Amino acid sequence: MYKSISSTQNSLVKQIAALIEKSRDRKKSGLFVIEGAREIALAKKGGYCFKQLLFCAEIFVEDPTRLTTDHTEIIKISEEVYQKLAYRTTTEGVLAVAEAKDHSVANSPLENDNPLVLVAEAPEKPGNIGALLRTADAANVDLVIIANPRTDIYNPNIIRSSVGCIFTNSVITGTTAEILQFLKSQNIQIYSAILQDSIPYHRCDFTKPTALVVGTEATGLTEEWRTQSTQNIIIPMQGEIDSMNVSVAAGILIFEAKRQRKFK
Amino acid sequence: MYKSISSTQNSLVKQIAALIEKSRDRKKSGLFVIEGAREIALAKKGGYCFKQLLFCAEIFVEDPTRLTTDHTEIIKISEEVYQKLAYRTTTEGVLAVAEAKDHSVANSPLENDNPLVLVAEAPEKPGNIGALLRTADAANVDLVIIANPRTDIYNPNIIRSSVGCIFTNSVITGTTAEILQFLKSQNIQIYSAILQDSIPYHRCDFTKPTALVVGTEATGLTEEWRTQSTQNIIIPMQGEIDSMNVSVAAGILIFEAKRQRKFK
Repeated sequence: MYKSISSTQNSLVKQIAALIEKSRDRKKSGLFVIEGAREIALAKKGGYCFKQLLFCAEIFVEDPTRLTTDHTEIIKISEEVYQKLAYRTTTEGVLAVAEAKDHSVANSPLENDNPLVLVAEAPEKPGNIGALLRTADAANVDLVIIANPRTDIYNPNIIRSSVGCIFTNSVITGTTAEILQFLKSQNIQIYSAILQDSIPYHRCDFTKPTALVVGTEATGLTEEWRTQSTQNIIIPMQGEIDSMNVSVAAGILIFEAKRQRKFK
Repeated sequence: MYKSISSTQNSLVKQIAALIEKSRDRKKSGLFVIEGAREIALAKKGGYCFKQLLFCAEIFVEDPTRLTTDHTEIIKISEEVYQKLAYRTTTEGVLAVAEAKDHSVANSPLENDNPLVLVAEAPEKPGNIGALLRTADAANVDLVIIANPRTDIYNPNIIRSSVGCIFTNSVITGTTAEILQFLKSQNIQIYSAILQDSIPYHRCDFTKPTALVVGTEATGLTEEWRTQSTQNIIIPMQGEIDSMNVSVAAGILIFEAKRQRKFK
């Protein structure tokens, strides 16, 4: 009943492998690949459309139509094809080829009139981006912004480490200049994690429209943030090592804002 | 002037390789290996003693005596030997063979009469333990406890991911039963991250002697904590995914305690 592919040399299989591996192929086609039933379900809930859903009947024994959207072609693949495409050792037997959304500033989905926004500039590791997105999801922040991104957000390692939270958050990306302009145009107060001229984060009022901005562990935020923020903030550190994991720092800032806002 | 080793077949080189790879060898000998000048310096500051300091003169061009302790034998090693032992791609050219400390409950170094303690039960990933230790260092908590550890704390991946904070923190390990007994004997209030019968973390008073207890992301804390804690607590979550990275959750709890204690 479903179309079936059993050869790893099939042209669609090769295309999908390229989408998984190459940012350039994702950009060119506007497509990307999602692995795992939970991640696919979260993307569906988040309004993504799937061009194809591929399942390996030996592993994925559910009805695949649960994971389809409008116009999704369902394809049965052999174990050999699945193993070629799948990353995980604990496999779930299902993959989706999904259509990318527009994450440009122009398409920003800000609806809340008192938003809480998380900005991460040029985060280095997909694992850190994943942890940031998980924290943003837990706090239900209104918008996650990746400024000066180093990779496209549909990098398989980001999808995986975010456990699908790349789909549950509203995400925009852009240059730091674009993001600064956007935040100012929305009258959002900009609190940037920068040492110079800073005050401790817990002395700030995050109950008004707020963006919390974190940089990389290695080099911090770029100069533009230092000069254009509403206020520079620090998390007071009292140890031997003057550094913290960026996703931990973001979690501390976000949940202080949530506490001040009484988790509303 | 220094003893020199150029063969990867040298017996000391083989012993060191085994110390890096095998928890059993570390346990048996009471020795472990530290890689990197910063980590070695932090261990020295933390009161560790080094049996040997090995440096590769082609890479490490400083005076090695800066990184020695009492009775440290300094050994010059060839690049080949160094590459065999070193993990990092960005190498620093220096390794120390250090003597383990006693991390049993009996040896607990609690001195502060109003301590803030972080407890992690059976953390799964060295990377998570490393991030927990970095956060604990930044907050200058009085004690970090690993209950029911799954690996020895001198696992090279823990040393590396903690960027040396395994040496800057006071750390004890033990069974959950031992740890519970210890905390009670010290009259430390036990706040455990458990859903049942919980209240939001920010409604708790962490200004008295406090232990903050987190479990694994997969299975949470064991039953003993649920029944024997002073209070179960949760971080309110409002997203699609009801989970958070364990080191982020610990960071949020620790810094709420720090905030309540006015960072003193």
